[in-house]
Amino acid sequence: MQGQSNQQAYDRGITIFSPDGRLYQVEYAREAVKRGTASVGLRTPDGVVLAANRQVSSPLMERESVEKIHKADEHIGVASAGHVADARQLVDLARRRAQGEQLRYGQQIGVETLTRAVTDHIQEYTQTGGARPFGVALLVGGIDAGEPKLFETDPSGTDYEWKAAAIGGDRDTIQGHLEENYRDDLDVDGGIEVALSALSAPEDEVVDAEDVDVATITTEDESFHSVETDHLESIIAEIDHPEEETDE
Amino acid sequence: MQGQSNQQAYDRGITIFSPDGRLYQVEYAREAVKRGTASVGLRTPDGVVLAANRQVSSPLMERESVEKIHKADEHIGVASAGHVADARQLVDLARRRAQGEQLRYGQQIGVETLTRAVTDHIQEYTQTGGARPFGVALLVGGIDAGEPKLFETDPSGTDYEWKAAAIGGDRDTIQGHLEENYRDDLDVDGGIEVALSALSAPEDEVVDAEDVDVATITTEDESFHSVETDHLESIIAEIDHPEEETDE
Amino acid sequence: MQGQSNQQAYDRGITIFSPDGRLYQVEYAREAVKRGTASVGLRTPDGVVLAANRQVSSPLMERESVEKIHKADEHIGVASAGHVADARQLVDLARRRAQGEQLRYGQQIGVETLTRAVTDHIQEYTQTGGARPFGVALLVGGIDAGEPKLFETDPSGTDYEWKAAAIGGDRDTIQGHLEENYRDDLDVDGGIEVALSALSAPEDEVVDAEDVDVATITTEDESFHSVETDHLESIIAEIDHPEEETDE
Amino acid sequence: MQGQSNQQAYDRGITIFSPDGRLYQVEYAREAVKRGTASVGLRTPDGVVLAANRQVSSPLMERESVEKIHKADEHIGVASAGHVADARQLVDLARRRAQGEQLRYGQQIGVETLTRAVTDHIQEYTQTGGARPFGVALLVGGIDAGEPKLFETDPSGTDYEWKAAAIGGDRDTIQGHLEENYRDDLDVDGGIEVALSALSAPEDEVVDAEDVDVATITTEDESFHSVETDHLESIIAEIDHPEEETDE
Amino acid sequence: MQGQSNQQAYDRGITIFSPDGRLYQVEYAREAVKRGTASVGLRTPDGVVLAANRQVSSPLMERESVEKIHKADEHIGVASAGHVADARQLVDLARRRAQGEQLRYGQQIGVETLTRAVTDHIQEYTQTGGARPFGVALLVGGIDAGEPKLFETDPSGTDYEWKAAAIGGDRDTIQGHLEENYRDDLDVDGGIEVALSALSAPEDEVVDAEDVDVATITTEDESFHSVETDHLESIIAEIDHPEEETDE
Amino acid sequence: MQGQSNQQAYDRGITIFSPDGRLYQVEYAREAVKRGTASVGLRTPDGVVLAANRQVSSPLMERESVEKIHKADEHIGVASAGHVADARQLVDLARRRAQGEQLRYGQQIGVETLTRAVTDHIQEYTQTGGARPFGVALLVGGIDAGEPKLFETDPSGTDYEWKAAAIGGDRDTIQGHLEENYRDDLDVDGGIEVALSALSAPEDEVVDAEDVDVATITTEDESFHSVETDHLESIIAEIDHPEEETDE
Amino acid sequence: MQGQSNQQAYDRGITIFSPDGRLYQVEYAREAVKRGTASVGLRTPDGVVLAANRQVSSPLMERESVEKIHKADEHIGVASAGHVADARQLVDLARRRAQGEQLRYGQQIGVETLTRAVTDHIQEYTQTGGARPFGVALLVGGIDAGEPKLFETDPSGTDYEWKAAAIGGDRDTIQGHLEENYRDDLDVDGGIEVALSALSAPEDEVVDAEDVDVATITTEDESFHSVETDHLESIIAEIDHPEEETDE
Repeated sequence: MQGQSNQQAYDRGITIFSPDGRLYQVEYAREAVKRGTASVGLRTPDGVVLAANRQVSSPLMERESVEKIHKADEHIGVASAGHVADARQLVDLARRRAQGEQLRYGQQIGVETLTRAVTDHIQEYTQTGGARPFGVALLVGGIDAGEPKLFETDPSGTDYEWKAAAIGGDRDTIQGHLEENYRDDLDVDGGIEVALSALSAPEDEVVDAEDVDVATITTEDESFHSVETDHLESIIAEIDHPEEETDE
Repeated sequence: MQGQSNQQAYDRGITIFSPDGRLYQVEYAREAVKRGTASVGLRTPDGVVLAANRQVSSPLMERESVEKIHKADEHIGVASAGHVADARQLVDLARRRAQGEQLRYGQQIGVETLTRAVTDHIQEYTQTGGARPFGVALLVGGIDAGEPKLFETDPSGTDYEWKAAAIGGDRDTIQGHLEENYRDDLDVDGGIEVALSALSAPEDEVVDAEDVDVATITTEDESFHSVETDHLESIIAEIDHPEEETDE
Repeated sequence: MQGQSNQQAYDRGITIFSPDGRLYQVEYAREAVKRGTASVGLRTPDGVVLAANRQVSSPLMERESVEKIHKADEHIGVASAGHVADARQLVDLARRRAQGEQLRYGQQIGVETLTRAVTDHIQEYTQTGGARPFGVALLVGGIDAGEPKLFETDPSGTDYEWKAAAIGGDRDTIQGHLEENYRDDLDVDGGIEVALSALSAPEDEVVDAEDVDVATITTEDESFHSVETDHLESIIAEIDHPEEETDE
Repeated sequence: MQGQSNQQAYDRGITIFSPDGRLYQVEYAREAVKRGTASVGLRTPDGVVLAANRQVSSPLMERESVEKIHKADEHIGVASAGHVADARQLVDLARRRAQGEQLRYGQQIGVETLTRAVTDHIQEYTQTGGARPFGVALLVGGIDAGEPKLFETDPSGTDYEWKAAAIGGDRDTIQGHLEENYRDDLDVDGGIEVALSALSAPEDEVVDAEDVDVATITTEDESFHSVETDHLESIIAEIDHPEEETDE
Repeated sequence: MQGQSNQQAYDRGITIFSPDGRLYQVEYAREAVKRGTASVGLRTPDGVVLAANRQVSSPLMERESVEKIHKADEHIGVASAGHVADARQLVDLARRRAQGEQLRYGQQIGVETLTRAVTDHIQEYTQTGGARPFGVALLVGGIDAGEPKLFETDPSGTDYEWKAAAIGGDRDTIQGHLEENYRDDLDVDGGIEVALSALSAPEDEVVDAEDVDVATITTEDESFHSVETDHLESIIAEIDHPEEETDE
Repeated sequence: MQGQSNQQAYDRGITIFSPDGRLYQVEYAREAVKRGTASVGLRTPDGVVLAANRQVSSPLMERESVEKIHKADEHIGVASAGHVADARQLVDLARRRAQGEQLRYGQQIGVETLTRAVTDHIQEYTQTGGARPFGVALLVGGIDAGEPKLFETDPSGTDYEWKAAAIGGDRDTIQGHLEENYRDDLDVDGGIEVALSALSAPEDEVVDAEDVDVATITTEDESFHSVETDHLESIIAEIDHPEEETDE
Repeated sequence: MQGQSNQQAYDRGITIFSPDGRLYQVEYAREAVKRGTASVGLRTPDGVVLAANRQVSSPLMERESVEKIHKADEHIGVASAGHVADARQLVDLARRRAQGEQLRYGQQIGVETLTRAVTDHIQEYTQTGGARPFGVALLVGGIDAGEPKLFETDPSGTDYEWKAAAIGGDRDTIQGHLEENYRDDLDVDGGIEVALSALSAPEDEVVDAEDVDVATITTEDESFHSVETDHLESIIAEIDHPEEETDE
C-alpha cells in the first residue's frame, strides 16, 4: 500500500520524475497504446508490410473509417495503435513534414528523418508542462534510397528500427509470433502472411480479411498501396491450409 | 472503495492519463453527451437523413430554438447531442471552415475534410492544458462528389464513418433499433421512417412530429432541407399503421 | 456523504466535467442567477415587454440606479438577473456588437445574431481556464424584420427563444404564472399586465409601480421605451380591480 | 462545522462560485472595506458633500497624508474606505480616465461614465484569474450637466446611485443616521452638518474638526474644494449646540 | 486551534483575502520588516534627518556595505528596514524614476511624487499573482520646493507622511521615544540627536557612532549628505552628557 | 517514516529546494540515468574512445537503432545514458550549436565550449518552472586544438572533465574498473580494450562485440569513426586471452 | 511537531513569506550553499586573494574541471560555493555584463557595479514565481580604481563587502579562523597563507596544494592570475613549519 501511495504521488499533473527515475505519465500513455488494437509491421528485401486489426463497434459502422494504416507520403506508410485522435495528429504532422521536404528541397523525405521529426514532437510533450504525452505508438515504414525501412515510435519519443514489430494490444504474443516466424528471405506476400498470422496469434484463430487493414510499400515502385481484400483472402487461405508456404 | 479513490486521483484538472491509460475528462465528456437528448443519422443511396428529439421545458419556449440540427454548408448538415453551447461552437467552426474553403478554393468542402477539421479542434482540447474537452458528439452528414456520407465525432476527437448512427441519451437502445431496421436499399423517406422509429424506441411510443427535428441532404439537389411537420406526420402515420412499408 | 464529497471534488477551480458529465461551476453560476431578483420578458404580436423587480437596500438609494433593464440598441432591450457587475459586462458587449454592426454594415443587428454574440462570449468562459463563468442570465428582446423576438441566455452559453420567460429568483413560480396567463393575442399593455402579475405571484401581492422597471419595444416604432410610472400604476390598478381584462 | 468546511472549500485562490452561487473572495473584499474607517457622501440641490474620518496612529503622522478624499477631476471627488493602496489605484485610474476624456473630446467626463470606467475595472478583477478583487469601496460625487450626482462602487464592480451613503466601518449605524436625518432641501452646509453628525453616530460623540476630511463640489463653480477646518469647527459647534438648525 | 488552521488557509500562495478581509502575505511581509534593524527619519524646519542602525555579522565585514541609507536623487534620501535585496530593488526603481523626471522634464522630482511611484509598484505586487509582496519599508525624505518632507512606504503599498517615524525592529519603542522627544523647533543637529537617542532606546544604551548610518538633506543646499563619524561622535557625547540641550 | 514524508513534500512539481538544500527532481533525474545501460569514455594521448552497451529487447530489433553513441560534429562524439528521447534532444542541440559555430565563425567548435552550451541548456530546465530536468547524462569527447578531451554532463547541468568516466547503470562498478586499469600511456586500441573490459565488469563476463557500440576520435585525422565489429572482436579476444597486453 | 508542520506550509512552491516574515526557499538555497565545498576571499593592500577547496570524486577526474574560481573580467575574479551549475549561470552573467560595459563605454566595469548586476538577477528569482532561487554564494574580488575590493553575494540577492570572507561548507569555522588571523598589513602571499590555513581549519590538517584552487588580482597589473601549484606548495610549507611568518 505504501508503494502504491508513493506511485500516486508522482503520476499526476505534468510529467515529472518519480524517486526511482521514472516518468509515470509516459508509462500510462504506454498503457493507452496497449488499450488499442494491434498493428504489425515487417520489412522484407523487396518492401515493407504494414497490417492492423480493425474492430467496429456496430455492423453499421464503415470499417474503412477505423483508420489504422495511413499514407504519410508517396513512399511512406504509418500504422498506429492507441489513442486514435492522437495518432491522427502525429500522422498529420508527418504529412506536413513530408510535404515541406518536397516543397523546400524537391525531394522525398527519408523514412528515418520523418520518424525523427515525429519523435521530437512526441518528446516535447513529455518534458514541457501544460500538456499530456501522446497516447499512441506508430510503425513508420517506407523505402529509403531503395532500401525498405521500418521504425517504431513510442510515447516517450524514442524511435527503434525493426525487421518486424508489433504495437498495441497483445503486443507480447504477437511479437513472439513474429520472432518465431520472421525470415530474412521473405518476399512481400510472405511478409503479409506472417503479419496476418501474427495478428491471429492472440485469438488462436485466423483473422478475417475484412477485419484487417494491410498496406505495402515495395522497392519496385516505391509507392504506398492498400492490399485488396481479395488478395488478403487468398493469403489467409494459405495460412489456414498451408501448401507451398516455404517456397513462397 | 480503493478503486474509486484511485479513479478520483486522475479525473480532475487537465486531461491526463490514468494508470490504465485512460483519459477520465474525455470519458466524463462522453457522459455529458449521454445527458443530452438523442440524435440519429443515416445514409441512403439518394441522401442523408438527420433526426433529433427536441424537448422544451415549458410550453412557452419556442421549440425551434432548441437547435439540434444545424446547416453547416449548403450540402452538409450537423446533428448534435450533449452540451448545447459547446455544440454551437463546433458548428460555428464548421461553418467558418466551409466558408473558408469556398473563399480560398471556390469549391464546396468535402464532408470528411470538414469532419476532420472539427475533430482536430476537439483533440486539441483533450491534450493541451487550461481547458476542458468539448462535451458534445456530432453527426456530420452531406454529399461528397455525389455520394451521401455520414460521420460521427466524439469528445476524444475521433471520427467514425457510419451507415446509420445514434448519439446522446439512450444511444444503445436506438443504435440497436437502427441495426435491426437499417437496409441498404432505403430511400430518403424510408430513412426518415427508420430514424423516427429508432428515436421512438426508448420510450416504446411513436414520437410526435412536433417533438422532432429532421433534415435531409439528397443527391438530387445536394442541399440541406428541413423536413416539414406535415411530411413528418404522414411518415409517422406509416409507423403507427404500417401498410406498404417493405416496398418503399 | 459520499455523494457530497464526490461533488466537492469537481466543483472547484476551472470548469471541468464531473464523472456524470456535469459542469458544477456552471451550475453554481445558475445559483448566482437565482440569488438575483426576477426579470420577465414576453412577446406579443405588436411588441416585446421586459419587466423586472428592483429592490433598494435603503430609501436613500436612487431606485433608477438598480439597473435591471438595459437598452442594447435602438430596437433591442435586455433584462438581467443575477450578478449585477457581470450583467453590465454582457450588456456592454451587446452594445459594442450592435454598434459594430451599424458601423460596418450600416444596418441594425438582428436580435438572434446579437444573442448569439453574447452566448458565444459566455460559453468561452465555461471552457477556457483562468476565469469563472458569468453569474447572470439575460432576456434579450427586440424587433427583427418587423417581428417581435425574445431570447434567453443562460450561464452555460445556451440560448432559448421564448414567448414569455422568467429568470432569477422565484423563477418557477413566475414561469408557472406566465404559462397560465400568457395568451397569443395579448397586446403590449396586456403583456405588461401579465408580466407585472407574474412578478407579483411569489409574494401573492401586487407589486408597486415604483418597485418595477418596465420597458417595451413595439413593432410600431421599433424603439426601446421605458414605461412611465403613471402608466404602470393604471395597469396595476387593472390587476387589483380587473374590469374588462378579458377583452383587452 | 460542515457548513464552515464547505465555505472554506470555495473561498480560496481565484474567485469562483460556491455551490450557492456566491463569490467568497468578493465577499471577503467587502470585509476589507469594513475594516477601513468610514466615509460618507451626500447630495444636495446645490452640490455634493464628501466626508471621511481619518485616524492617525501617532501624533507625529501628518494627518493630511491619510488620504480618504481625492480630487478625481476638476468637478469630481472620490471618498474611499478599505484597503488604502487599492483605493489609490482606482483613484489614479479615475484621474487618467478623466484626463483622457478631456484630451480626446475636450470635455469633462460625466460622473456616471467615470464611475462605470472604475467598476468595469473592478469587475475584471473578480472574474479573471491570477489576481484578487479590490478591497475598497468608493463614493464618487460631482456635477453632471449642472446636477449633483453621487455614486458608490463596491468590490463586486457594482455601482449604485445615492442621495446619501456611507461606506466602511460602522456603515450600518452611519447609514441609519443618514436615513433619519437626510432631507431633500438641505443646502451644502446643512449637508456637511448631516455628514459630520452621521460620522459621529457610532461613537456617540461629535467628531473633532481635525479628525475629518471634508470636500464639496457645488453647482455654483463645479469645482472640488476641501473644506477648511475653521468652517468645519463652526458647523460642529452647530451640532453640539444647535440653534436654527431646522430652518437651514 | 480552529483560528490557527483558518489562518493557515489564507496565507499561502498569492495574496488573497481572508474571510475577515485581511491579506496575510502582506502582513507577513510586515513581519519581514520587523526582522530588519531599525531606521528612523525626522523632519526639522531646515532639513530631513535619516538614521539607521547597521549591524555587521563579523568584524571583517565592511560596515559601509550594510547599506541602510541610500541617495535616491540629489535632494532625496531613502532609509530602509527589512529584506535587504528587496530594498535595493525599490531604491533602484526610485533612482530610475528620479532620473527619468530629470531627463523628460529637466527638473527634480517631488518627494511625494517619487514616493507614490514606489508605492504603486509595491501595491502591484500585492494584487497580481505570481509574485510575493516586497518585504521592506522605506522612509523617503527630501526637500520639496524648499520644504523638508518625510514619507513612509509600507508593504501594502500605502504611504504616510510623518514628522518623525521609525521602521523595522523595535519600531514601537523607538516611535514612542520619538513621540516624547520630537519638537517642531529642532534644528538638523538636534534632529540627529533625537534620532540617535531614539535608536538607542530599545537597548537602553547610547549607540556607537560606528554602528549607525546618518544622512541629512537640508534646505540650505538641497543635497544629500552622509554625516561624518566625527560629527556623530560629538552629538553622541551630547546625549551621554547633555549640557545645553534645551537651547539648541 | 517522518523522513520519508518530508522528502515527499519537496520532490514534486517544479524543481524547488528541500530544507536541506537539495533539488529532488534533479536527483530523480539522476536515477533515470542509472536506469539506462552504461556508457564509457576515455582519453588517451592519441585520441578519445567512447563505448556503450546496447541492449535490444527482441532479436528483430535493429541493433544500430539503439543509438548510444552519436556524432556531434566532425571531431566530437557523444555517448549517452538514461532517457533516450531526452538524449536525442541534447545531441540535436549540440549538432545545431556546432553547425552554428561553423557557419558564423568558419571554425570547429571547442569540445568544452560545446559541452557548456549543453549544460547551460540542462541547467535552465532545473530552475525555470513548467518543465522537468533532462533524465540523461552525456560523455562528450573530441579533439581540441590537437588535444583529446573528455567531458561529462549530468542532469543538474554540471560538467566535469575526465581521463576516463562511466555513466548509466552499474556506474560505480565500471568506474572502479576504469580506476584500476586506466593508464596514461594507453594508445587508442588499448583504450578500447580498457573500455570494453570495464563495460564487462558488472556481469563478470566479456561483452560480445555485437552488444557494444564503440567510436573513436583520434588526433591523427580529428574525425569521428565508429569501430568495426571485426576490430572489436580482435580486441575482445585480447581481453579473453591476454598476451602482450602490458607492452601495448 | 506543530512548529515543523507550520514550517512545511510555507517552504514549497514559489518563494512566499512565512508568518514570521521568512522566505524558506531562500533559506533552503542557503543550505544548498552549505552543501558545497568552501571558498575564501580576502583583501590586502596590494590585491585580492580567492581560494577554494576542490574535491574530485575519482582520481580519473580532471581536478581543473572542478571550477570553483572563475575569471569574470581581466581585473575581477569570482569564487563560488554551492550548486555548481547555478554558479556557472551567474558567472556567465557577470562576464556578459563586464563585456557589455567594455563594449558600450570602453572601460572596465567596477567590482561593486558588477556585483550589483549579479545580485539584482538573484533577487528577481526570489520574488517572481515560476522559478527557484539560485543555490549558490559568490565572492567577487577585483581592483576598483586601484583599490582591492571584495564582495559576497548570497541567495537572497544581498551583497556585502568584506575584508575577508568564507562561503560554503564549514563557513563558521573558516570565518572564525579568518577573524583570528586576518591582519590589515598582509601582503598577497600572506593573504594566500591565511586563506589556505583557514581552508585547512575544519579538518585540522593543512590542505594539499593540489586540492585547492587559488587566484589573485593585484594592484600591480590589475589582472586575474591563477597561482601555480609550486608557489602554493612553498606557502603551505610555511604553514606547516612557520619561520618568519610575522615579518612577511
